[in-house]
Amino acid sequence: MDMYGIIQKKRDGGTLSDGEIRYFVDAYTAGAIPDYQAAALLMAMFFNELSRGEIFALTQAMRDSGDRIDLSSIKGIKVDKHSTGGVGDKTTFIAAPLAAACGVPVAKMSGRGLGFTGGTIDKMESIPGMRTGLGTDEFVRLVKTGSIAVTGQTGRVAPADKKIYALRDVTATVDILGLIASSVMSKKLSSGSDALVLDVKCGSGAFMETVADAEKLGRMMADIGEAAGMETVALVTDMQQPLGHAVGNSIEVIEAIETLKGRGPEDITELSLELCAYMLLLGGKASSRDEGLDKAASALKSGAGLAKFRSFVAGQGGDPRAIDDYGLFPQAAFAEEIKAAAGGYVTGLAARGIGNASREAGAGRAAKDDIIDLAAGVQLRKKIGDPVEPGAALAVVYGNDEMKVKGAAAAVGRAFSIGPEKPQARRLVHAAICGKGRP
Amino acid sequence: MDMYGIIQKKRDGGTLSDGEIRYFVDAYTAGAIPDYQAAALLMAMFFNELSRGEIFALTQAMRDSGDRIDLSSIKGIKVDKHSTGGVGDKTTFIAAPLAAACGVPVAKMSGRGLGFTGGTIDKMESIPGMRTGLGTDEFVRLVKTGSIAVTGQTGRVAPADKKIYALRDVTATVDILGLIASSVMSKKLSSGSDALVLDVKCGSGAFMETVADAEKLGRMMADIGEAAGMETVALVTDMQQPLGHAVGNSIEVIEAIETLKGRGPEDITELSLELCAYMLLLGGKASSRDEGLDKAASALKSGAGLAKFRSFVAGQGGDPRAIDDYGLFPQAAFAEEIKAAAGGYVTGLAARGIGNASREAGAGRAAKDDIIDLAAGVQLRKKIGDPVEPGAALAVVYGNDEMKVKGAAAAVGRAFSIGPEKPQARRLVHAAICGKGRP
Repeated sequence: MDMYGIIQKKRDGGTLSDGEIRYFVDAYTAGAIPDYQAAALLMAMFFNELSRGEIFALTQAMRDSGDRIDLSSIKGIKVDKHSTGGVGDKTTFIAAPLAAACGVPVAKMSGRGLGFTGGTIDKMESIPGMRTGLGTDEFVRLVKTGSIAVTGQTGRVAPADKKIYALRDVTATVDILGLIASSVMSKKLSSGSDALVLDVKCGSGAFMETVADAEKLGRMMADIGEAAGMETVALVTDMQQPLGHAVGNSIEVIEAIETLKGRGPEDITELSLELCAYMLLLGGKASSRDEGLDKAASALKSGAGLAKFRSFVAGQGGDPRAIDDYGLFPQAAFAEEIKAAAGGYVTGLAARGIGNASREAGAGRAAKDDIIDLAAGVQLRKKIGDPVEPGAALAVVYGNDEMKVKGAAAAVGRAFSIGPEKPQARRLVHAAICGKGRP
Repeated sequence: MDMYGIIQKKRDGGTLSDGEIRYFVDAYTAGAIPDYQAAALLMAMFFNELSRGEIFALTQAMRDSGDRIDLSSIKGIKVDKHSTGGVGDKTTFIAAPLAAACGVPVAKMSGRGLGFTGGTIDKMESIPGMRTGLGTDEFVRLVKTGSIAVTGQTGRVAPADKKIYALRDVTATVDILGLIASSVMSKKLSSGSDALVLDVKCGSGAFMETVADAEKLGRMMADIGEAAGMETVALVTDMQQPLGHAVGNSIEVIEAIETLKGRGPEDITELSLELCAYMLLLGGKASSRDEGLDKAASALKSGAGLAKFRSFVAGQGGDPRAIDDYGLFPQAAFAEEIKAAAGGYVTGLAARGIGNASREAGAGRAAKDDIIDLAAGVQLRKKIGDPVEPGAALAVVYGNDEMKVKGAAAAVGRAFSIGPEKPQARRLVHAAICGKGRP
């Protein structure tokens, strides 16, 4: 195999063979192909779209580059859940315990990553004592005994993806549909679950800006899952404005707990139930999405979901008292309120703008080694469609660095648009893309 | 400046500013931009064509990355000559002494490089004693006293081009028109001459396969020269079959000497005179191409060109006796004749095939550190349009490695096509692209 020829072939619009793709992935991961040749190939892939076959081969080669977690000793259909990333997305903390409470084993590996806030693992660490670096044995044992565990990804899962992603991140080759799909799916296929519910975000705060692009990505990932024997459903959901009211780390976990207590914002509640419904469907605990939705709603109402969350926290060393006493979460030294200059209705609330403000306040990483301020973030008081009086509080920014909090507050102000007319509400779930066997 | 943003801008079809181009060239040359980011940008440039402004800026930034030779102490209009590279091209050894004999100072810097044969510098070194690494002082002194000197390029001329070219060479980003043009012109602009005659090859043995592409490249280079104050004429000439009969190093120099003696092949003679004509025109020694052609032909006929070649050799330490006794050139231990299997006419003689055979025989480098066999090469006995009897000699391969010579001979056989009809002759000079001031 000859990397120069592979670059040239892709550059000239050819379709790489499975063998060529596997050679690239294996040799690059092993350090036998230099970064500059990989970068040239990735940029050629930006211009000459990857075929289905190329995407499948890439996903499988990246999956095979590392360990595959063996969950076969856990009874039942293990269902994973993954979001492509948005602002204020804390649905994992609600949908996963609800699904577990309904009898679906959830063994989830999550990341940290760069972004507007921390990743799921960072957010979890705002719960005092919570351990997020479980060994495989403990991880499996917790799922067996409590139906749910969430742990950080080890470097041994899909190391090829890790290395290729790091290169994409510095060469302007991140936003390539086929590479996004194969990156996500290589990790998910390594994680040992039998089925997967994907939440593909679309809108100004997401990778995919349009519903059409998000559907394309969702379809691609569902196809990859199907081809590899992992049943996959992809929901396409709205990310025009942040989800819920809290954007940060500890404040998002608190909002998730509130939701499990039945007091959460409408959008978060609705989306979490929807995700849970599909987890139950794929996990064989419901025969239709509607039945799944009923069961999920019951588990929420009965408090079974909250109870499951409590045992999940305790199981991983977290202090369950924090669930009732939010004062035990990391606290911010500074808070800055953003007030409406004029009255009317909130007509726009840029998810990306709020996300950037959240990162600026200290809630997210700009560089890999940045330390997250777990108490930092943005608490929205108004969302799109809400009426506002002049001078009313639109949001509060929290954090432990006063300068950063003030800077973030200015950015939050810019993310709001206020006008005289109440805007039409956007749908929260745009589409559900199911595999062949599902209606 | 931010390299990521520069990659992204070019990737998305934007036009880079002069400042952005200069930042890339300077920072990459200084080692402040990693190879993988440069590779991603180069591949984006493959897909999104460079604008005139971008090409000018790139050329100037690469020129400014190193030394510029100062030839200002040499009286007259110094004219350089450059070929984009073909098979059997030894015109420099004829056109340059002819131009010098007619009073145009020629101070030429040449390369070695990879390829079918060695570069001009390698070929020169087949003349016993010839020195090709002149210091600037000696270089200038030789041009002052004898009107001609040819020396190797130092690493201090356009080091940015050197580094970028090396990266293009391993990332399948060589064949990008704007980068080819800026690479050539950055070196030519550094070399201190006032004017330039370019020989842009087109055909199966050249970078540019079609006349249209070659014209585009020639026009681009002429424009760059014009913009930088170096008058440039680009001839587009044929490279469908090798030039002349000799392809190698010593055998090419011998063929050039034969041409200066008036006994050269027709095509080599014609093209050398044409190139010289334009050198005289740009050098102010002829008022038209036709007058230049007359003067060049006179200098050939009178032996003034050969006399100039003789003093050029002596000036750089070469043994002028070799001009009369070819036995003083490196000799090949092995020779292998290729015979025609059938009779008819030569209908095709693939320049690239002969070039590859020449390299295989040992005359060219496949890798940078390969050592050239100066005696190796291919001597053609027949060219396109020549009648052949069955069993007639088509070519002879020379070299000092018997296995390589035999392998090359087989490749030479494959490069010939023989058919019943005499093919139409192709034009040798397809176009002459002149700057604004010239007809």
